Amino acid sequence: MSSRLTIALDAMGGDRAPQMVIDGANIARKRFPDVQYLLFGDEPRLTPLLEKVPALKALCEIRHTPEFVANEDKPSVALRSGRRSSMRLAIDAVDTGDAAAVVSAGNTGALMAMAKVVLRMVPGIDRPAIASYFPTLRGESVMLDLGANVECDADNLVQFAIMGEVFARTVLGVTQPSIGLLNVGAEEQKGHEEVRTAAATLRDTDLPIRFHGFVEGNDITGGTVDVVVTDGFSGNIALKTAEGTAKLYSEFLRGAFRSSFIARVGYLFARHALNKVRKRIDPRRYNGALFLGLNGIVVKSHGGTDALGFANAIGVAIDMAANDFNSKIRAELEHLQSGAANRQAATG
Amino acid sequence: MSSRLTIALDAMGGDRAPQMVIDGANIARKRFPDVQYLLFGDEPRLTPLLEKVPALKALCEIRHTPEFVANEDKPSVALRSGRRSSMRLAIDAVDTGDAAAVVSAGNTGALMAMAKVVLRMVPGIDRPAIASYFPTLRGESVMLDLGANVECDADNLVQFAIMGEVFARTVLGVTQPSIGLLNVGAEEQKGHEEVRTAAATLRDTDLPIRFHGFVEGNDITGGTVDVVVTDGFSGNIALKTAEGTAKLYSEFLRGAFRSSFIARVGYLFARHALNKVRKRIDPRRYNGALFLGLNGIVVKSHGGTDALGFANAIGVAIDMAANDFNSKIRAELEHLQSGAANRQAATG
Repeated sequence: MSSRLTIALDAMGGDRAPQMVIDGANIARKRFPDVQYLLFGDEPRLTPLLEKVPALKALCEIRHTPEFVANEDKPSVALRSGRRSSMRLAIDAVDTGDAAAVVSAGNTGALMAMAKVVLRMVPGIDRPAIASYFPTLRGESVMLDLGANVECDADNLVQFAIMGEVFARTVLGVTQPSIGLLNVGAEEQKGHEEVRTAAATLRDTDLPIRFHGFVEGNDITGGTVDVVVTDGFSGNIALKTAEGTAKLYSEFLRGAFRSSFIARVGYLFARHALNKVRKRIDPRRYNGALFLGLNGIVVKSHGGTDALGFANAIGVAIDMAANDFNSKIRAELEHLQSGAANRQAATG
Repeated sequence: MSSRLTIALDAMGGDRAPQMVIDGANIARKRFPDVQYLLFGDEPRLTPLLEKVPALKALCEIRHTPEFVANEDKPSVALRSGRRSSMRLAIDAVDTGDAAAVVSAGNTGALMAMAKVVLRMVPGIDRPAIASYFPTLRGESVMLDLGANVECDADNLVQFAIMGEVFARTVLGVTQPSIGLLNVGAEEQKGHEEVRTAAATLRDTDLPIRFHGFVEGNDITGGTVDVVVTDGFSGNIALKTAEGTAKLYSEFLRGAFRSSFIARVGYLFARHALNKVRKRIDPRRYNGALFLGLNGIVVKSHGGTDALGFANAIGVAIDMAANDFNSKIRAELEHLQSGAANRQAATG
């Protein structure tokens, strides 16, 4: 293959894989015609699907493996016995440099465990975090961790804050991003020990971080801060609750527009505007969560997504790779850490 | 006062108290003309407000106290030094039997701490939980804990499941409510130890409980189960995230309908249907969270609510008191516990 940007795809991950993966790559192809793909998966299943989309086929190389990680596999099991799985080989391709990034809609825990072992952590970060951006009243914000770590100590939360800050700066383009710690109230004494200790650290730190303080669930979509930091348990629940609530609202709207003849007429006039709203909050639009803190770009797609959502996840991977995001985050972390060390030495 | 149902109101609790409390009681008066109120708060401030609503004034008795619990007070401080506060005296009125229930929009932690000390726990329940119902794709469900306990062990979660089950049966009228434990995935190995242990207990229990298993954030509004059980940290974040997301959607809609002339025309036709949707998801409609597990009915209103929201919280208190909910929940708990003890004795 040429020197063009290459993305590794776990062709067997996701509820509707491999069809959804091929279709997603085909949508991404139209947006990013210069990108190539390494497809990891079962060749006898993939080849006939690719035959139907010759333009995509020309950009793909299949790397055959009959093995794949199942959704119900424990991460530890996947790690031990999944060395020849489509997911693992796709991650390996990032490590060897064959691909600039990997995208998988498979088992999140397995993907995280494998990515940690293969790509290892950036120095100064103990645990990876899953980050994604989402729409708010004021634009877009980023939240992490969305489910990598169900339990986090204060140090983890502080590291997530640093990574989220760099993400907001380099990806969202915010000059001095504000950071909020998700909690059950804004007052200092609220919440459990981990968030209180993390808040104290972020409040007193020498790092050039704009720490807003605690934020609550409604601040997430309110856009109160640019970066919402939380543990993976609460973050995952918040993310999925937001998705579920948007769906509820959509369904209620659908019902309302069907409830009378006049409402149906109103729908005809308002259809175009309503579709814009629907697109603006479509979870597929925000599909593609980044694993932050690894020496390599790993993008996790929602397992239940469709081709359009998967194409967006591919888009996130391409954006990150094209902008050399990981070098930036590593440089920023080193800069922040050496700055902190210098200040500590100066005052110590 | 007569033997009519009497509700104690903390007139000084809430961002817009006491005006909001008086206005809320006045809305509630029109819905429940036979109910009387004990207003706890600063008489010189309350009297002129009541003068303006003579019909309400006739149903109210002011119990003067100049003291009140501030929003930023720590629960422990409020407990020690707030014995003459409007909040505490309103709770005391439930204990003495002067009132059938208490409603406060004040400091949640203080209200909970005081209610625990004054009213004490129902035997078999270690900690109170905050419960509320909310709209779903399939009707209405109940979730608890919404913020009373930021950390919960497995036993607490199991007790919440039992209380939620009784709540769904007696309040929502569901014959055999299904119970789900909120987690980051449906698989058995997902989540932290507390939810896994609680799930194992609920799965193996002899109690006649229909345990569905783990549910995720999107299942809350999806209506997958009748009762969603979680710790107070995640529950509070989920609740507020849902409120924030609904608000985001509403704002996006508002913007869309203003975006073009045709959309404005559409709005005119669809206005009636849209208002129905707005009402259906209006958080004020679901305002009024119950503190479960106490020997007395305590309803917490959102601190930032308006008169309409506060009136709904009063409505919850009246419903609970009129249906003698607390006796039912206590009887159910005793029944469940003696049943469990009998089964244990039989098999032991």
